[in-house]
Amino acid sequence: MPTHFSDRLCEAVREKATPLIIGLDPVYERIKPVINAENDITALSAEANAVYKFGSQIINIAAPLVPAIKINIAFFEKYLWKGIEAYYNLIAEAKELGLMVIGDIKRGDIGHSAAAYAAAHLADIQRDELEEVVSCDAVTVNGYTGLDGIQPFAQQALSGGKGIFVLVRTSNPSAAEIQDFSDKDGQKMYEKVAEIVNNIAENSEYVGKNGYSCVGMVVGGTSPDTTSALRQKYDKIWFLVPGFGAQGAGAVDCIRFCKPDGTRALINASRSIIYAFEREEYKKQFGDDWKRCVEQAVIDAKMLLSNAMQDKL
Amino acid sequence: MPTHFSDRLCEAVREKATPLIIGLDPVYERIKPVINAENDITALSAEANAVYKFGSQIINIAAPLVPAIKINIAFFEKYLWKGIEAYYNLIAEAKELGLMVIGDIKRGDIGHSAAAYAAAHLADIQRDELEEVVSCDAVTVNGYTGLDGIQPFAQQALSGGKGIFVLVRTSNPSAAEIQDFSDKDGQKMYEKVAEIVNNIAENSEYVGKNGYSCVGMVVGGTSPDTTSALRQKYDKIWFLVPGFGAQGAGAVDCIRFCKPDGTRALINASRSIIYAFEREEYKKQFGDDWKRCVEQAVIDAKMLLSNAMQDKL
Repeated sequence: MPTHFSDRLCEAVREKATPLIIGLDPVYERIKPVINAENDITALSAEANAVYKFGSQIINIAAPLVPAIKINIAFFEKYLWKGIEAYYNLIAEAKELGLMVIGDIKRGDIGHSAAAYAAAHLADIQRDELEEVVSCDAVTVNGYTGLDGIQPFAQQALSGGKGIFVLVRTSNPSAAEIQDFSDKDGQKMYEKVAEIVNNIAENSEYVGKNGYSCVGMVVGGTSPDTTSALRQKYDKIWFLVPGFGAQGAGAVDCIRFCKPDGTRALINASRSIIYAFEREEYKKQFGDDWKRCVEQAVIDAKMLLSNAMQDKL
Repeated sequence: MPTHFSDRLCEAVREKATPLIIGLDPVYERIKPVINAENDITALSAEANAVYKFGSQIINIAAPLVPAIKINIAFFEKYLWKGIEAYYNLIAEAKELGLMVIGDIKRGDIGHSAAAYAAAHLADIQRDELEEVVSCDAVTVNGYTGLDGIQPFAQQALSGGKGIFVLVRTSNPSAAEIQDFSDKDGQKMYEKVAEIVNNIAENSEYVGKNGYSCVGMVVGGTSPDTTSALRQKYDKIWFLVPGFGAQGAGAVDCIRFCKPDGTRALINASRSIIYAFEREEYKKQFGDDWKRCVEQAVIDAKMLLSNAMQDKL
């Protein structure tokens, strides 16, 4: 049996001494000033290549500092098969450097279709030239179809020492209209989804030595009050918390998801980190050295979370 | 301005005189007996190639008989970038033969990520060698994140004469636990999602000459009673109805979604058609001629729907 996902994750978080993870959402127009692509390239594979190069640099900066990187496949899928190839190459590079990789794929389907997605993104696949394509350590899953849609991902994850994070409460403004929809007893939609997720997650084969399940939840950091019940109720769950930084969630809000030892939550920052070279505070310090800007932004974000944790204790 | 999606769809349905569409969900293990792939091929690109060849044959059979094909990207994504390239090649072939193409991608995300997915799947993209990659006519969208997640797809669709179908009520057994979740007034989750979808769909710029919107809904054919209210309430909506055939929805159930002129719904059959060569009734008639089996299954399914429509009138 492969080492359990949640045990690997605990180990990675302790080793890097932070719950911070970096979200890779690379948009060509924003990275163009710092990546050595030819001028005025618009062709598909050239843009895909620039996005790949940028991602590779971010991974190298992130590797010594954080336990994991979250790669948003949407920004690669935009470049069709060229982008998908770049996406898998980045996964391999990140894992080579000791990062855990979360594929932010938000896939959701039922039965055979869900199993096909799970195989694509969680199974290590044998490729033509007798080479293996390495897949993510975990993926995000959309559970609108209920158990039928979650189970195939959970099973694929379990069998390979991988994990999943099911969307429970997202951090966008319109999330409430669906996810906070309440039944007659006041239970909200996202609480119902959490219940379904936990019914899978708490089964003993899904739970690692550290007491956490390989089936986790995505819960936005922008609404810490509405979600505190989830943290109290589900003690085997890893939370993936988006929204730190550019989306408006503060360190104090986000750190509420973590246990005192720093486990239980991964706090994701994407744009505030990877585009740090656009921020005046860093430009002033490091000028054109964009990688130094990004590195410092990671260090600063870690410090913010660490201070928030100290204050909480 | 490009011709409105819903007008193109009305035209296609009238021309082929059926609401039937074929779902392409090709699984290598099942198509192996009929596709000339080398024996015992397990390598990734060889399987991707077999799946592509099979899809291409299905498209050729379907083109004269039905208005559209629905391609489930999960079964291509399984073969990583090789599969994605095959997926786009099949879209181009289908459109070349006059079929409309629905990308069954079930993507869902917010803001920039949703826009990136929408661009990948609904925009025709300029490729390296000054060649254009043709994209789908419409895609399926998962709306669990609310308006923020649906709007970017709807806008991309509108600008290019394309369409979207948002998952409202799916046909799988566990759909009810989430989608039938009811508020204190008895409104169900899927009805709430439908309301949000319709709020976009009914805007005049989204509505074509025939009175239908380019923003539609996926509503499973297996629960015709629970969803009859949707049909009565939302008169500008095209319904994409999965579940006809292998998933257990009958012609009578499915045809209830159509208006007497055959518009308003696309009735999808996947496995019962594309694997018709496994069915005794067709093997008996056509032996090893697998394409003839598939063709006859399409003709029979059209007839079932046509008879159900006659009985209804």
